[in-house]
Amino acid sequence: MNQPLKIAIAGLGTVGAGTLGIVQRHSNLLAQRCGRSLQVTAISARDRNKDRGHPLDAFEWFDDPVEMARSADADVIVELIGGEDGVAKSVFEAAIGASRHVVTANKALLAHHGTALAKAAEAAGVTLAYEAAVAGGIPIVKSLREGLAANSLTRVYGILNGTCNYILTAMRKTGRPFDDVLREAQDLGYAEADPSFDIDGVDAAHKIAILTSIAFGTEIDFGAVHVEGIRQVSPLDIEYAEELGYRIKLLATARRTAHGIEQRVHASMVPNTAPIAFVDGVTNAIVAEGDAIGSAVHVGPGAGGGPTASAVVADLVDIARGRVTPTFSVPANVLEPLVPAAMEQHSGSYYIRLMVDDKPGVVADVAAALRDEEVSLESMLQRARSTDEAVPVVLTTHTSEEAAIRRALQRIGGLSSVREAPCMIRIEDL
Amino acid sequence: MNQPLKIAIAGLGTVGAGTLGIVQRHSNLLAQRCGRSLQVTAISARDRNKDRGHPLDAFEWFDDPVEMARSADADVIVELIGGEDGVAKSVFEAAIGASRHVVTANKALLAHHGTALAKAAEAAGVTLAYEAAVAGGIPIVKSLREGLAANSLTRVYGILNGTCNYILTAMRKTGRPFDDVLREAQDLGYAEADPSFDIDGVDAAHKIAILTSIAFGTEIDFGAVHVEGIRQVSPLDIEYAEELGYRIKLLATARRTAHGIEQRVHASMVPNTAPIAFVDGVTNAIVAEGDAIGSAVHVGPGAGGGPTASAVVADLVDIARGRVTPTFSVPANVLEPLVPAAMEQHSGSYYIRLMVDDKPGVVADVAAALRDEEVSLESMLQRARSTDEAVPVVLTTHTSEEAAIRRALQRIGGLSSVREAPCMIRIEDL
Repeated sequence: MNQPLKIAIAGLGTVGAGTLGIVQRHSNLLAQRCGRSLQVTAISARDRNKDRGHPLDAFEWFDDPVEMARSADADVIVELIGGEDGVAKSVFEAAIGASRHVVTANKALLAHHGTALAKAAEAAGVTLAYEAAVAGGIPIVKSLREGLAANSLTRVYGILNGTCNYILTAMRKTGRPFDDVLREAQDLGYAEADPSFDIDGVDAAHKIAILTSIAFGTEIDFGAVHVEGIRQVSPLDIEYAEELGYRIKLLATARRTAHGIEQRVHASMVPNTAPIAFVDGVTNAIVAEGDAIGSAVHVGPGAGGGPTASAVVADLVDIARGRVTPTFSVPANVLEPLVPAAMEQHSGSYYIRLMVDDKPGVVADVAAALRDEEVSLESMLQRARSTDEAVPVVLTTHTSEEAAIRRALQRIGGLSSVREAPCMIRIEDL
Repeated sequence: MNQPLKIAIAGLGTVGAGTLGIVQRHSNLLAQRCGRSLQVTAISARDRNKDRGHPLDAFEWFDDPVEMARSADADVIVELIGGEDGVAKSVFEAAIGASRHVVTANKALLAHHGTALAKAAEAAGVTLAYEAAVAGGIPIVKSLREGLAANSLTRVYGILNGTCNYILTAMRKTGRPFDDVLREAQDLGYAEADPSFDIDGVDAAHKIAILTSIAFGTEIDFGAVHVEGIRQVSPLDIEYAEELGYRIKLLATARRTAHGIEQRVHASMVPNTAPIAFVDGVTNAIVAEGDAIGSAVHVGPGAGGGPTASAVVADLVDIARGRVTPTFSVPANVLEPLVPAAMEQHSGSYYIRLMVDDKPGVVADVAAALRDEEVSLESMLQRARSTDEAVPVVLTTHTSEEAAIRRALQRIGGLSSVREAPCMIRIEDL
């Protein structure tokens, strides 16, 4: 048997404790799969005395994770501190500087500094592994980098935020409004006390920025991701979606277009026959489209101690086995700058809901505004009638350019009979 | 740049030609992903003069693939001849004997000789790679062996035969009988002229035998797979399945039980809310359940030149990168003999359809037979009435042992008012 792989863990929350648990519980199985044993040698966490269900006496303890990354008796540093800067970044730099491999679940750090960190790691001849950073339990990084390595990928998209999918699923199943369901999700622990990171799309944007780089061989460009959340999705839109044959999902998409690479996160109408339409609750799903494969769908848990720890340990097994893959599929020094496609150039169908006075001529005015921007209508629905309250008018368009839609909505929003700002949701061609 | 990886391809059907196409079309991308170029150096196929859309002059030609495996200027032999014995096996043995890696799509060969071939390959220090052998476009071998390496797997199941899924989907959508739809599938090229290999479950059995070995660290034991096909599935059963909240799929399952390892292929009722219930047509799907991950679902094309070639090339990329993994997840010399659970010990719910005379007392006789075997009924449906024709009676049971069900069905089949052999379909707890 070869030398054990020595592991230092920085951060002992649910994922850190889960990682420690798997390494201990499956020590024999992992030794067979790795050809050597996995051995945790050092730990750093905020509070040494907190009861974590694991005795920690056998490990060298560090109050300072950066010091641990620099000087622990370890081949790999597992960074589970989180945060796009600060300590986590210092842990990375110290580990790479000391020629140690790094395994992380830190999507924010990679979204902001991934290219530079990958270059540093590859120059130092160490691995930067991050399966746990995207869709916890789904081995999507391995699938894209290795399983689908024969493909030129054209599009990668998915449901990358469990909190949003939980809320949208509950809204659909109960008809309740966003705020209500959000509060419930917070009570159940599916949403944070400050939920904005999830529900405003930032978390999904971090993840898609990383997947874009793997899929297209480009430098990570988080700033170029178009990010919207789900706060504005109303029960009315969810109802109309059902009627029109769609479901509303917070979708993260990376796609090659003639204008450059689209990276976008926003509520989308997905056809109710698409495989990801059936993905409910906190579950995540990712679809990869490539020239040889057609399309491959991955569905699984996106978060949680067990699944995320499973991904961390899978990375440790790769390192123990000496399996090496360039961080973002091709060597970091040949990643190309990402040429972003502007969201205004996005081409697709649109769902538009207006709240209007129920009187003759309103639809004509709206239709004229769309016509003048050369937006062609696919359907129009006006079901409710009311003499005093605003009634919904729902339109769907044929393929149009986003810039034209925006100009038309600007004009429509200014019509005197249109009572609120128009609601627009993009329809996905899946 | 390192030395190119030299590749010899035995068999130039759709997969072989697809492999050649990808290697040529993506030579730059693959060189970046591999850190070296992939170079096809030799070819062997049945007819040198057939037009395959690729000029073959640049490759050394071998009429005898075994001779090629032994003496071509190649690091890897890609075996795409097929068949559980004969030439394909000789190609393997020659390649391993000459210390060359082998990449294959040959599930039959592995199902019958996988353990011995893996031992030989590992002893020779070469790779035996077979991503293409199971669910062509789905990188399930990589997912199970590497992505989910942190898990003790408890169950792996899926839709592993596209022909059967196409037929069952078409039967459900059109209400037409099996024979009819099979003929259509043959016309469309989704089923072979001799379809028995697919529709009798043998193909899916080969695949699940391989996945069992990866999942549970056991020697391949194809003979222990319980195999049934879909010939007996009638439109009536498909209709009742819908009514009861199920869909009928040819499911292949590998599961740890208290009695040993279950390996079974047969038509199953799957809840219409399960992710794989939505997998229609020739698409394949595999679900892996493990202690850390919970469950991970993979959906994608199960066959076809492009997807299968994608899997072959992914294996070539692994070899080019020097990424090594034991053939069946743990080293072949520590694989344990598989302790099979007998099908009679299977425990689950059952769907039973009888064609009976519509007269008083029939259901009482049937219920008595089940009671005597301690099989507890969950539901009973008798919709149609007829004084002269047999009418269907449909029963579902609570969890029961298969042996008891079989004894009860034996007795029920012998009742004078029961007109045909009872139809039994297992209900899956997914």
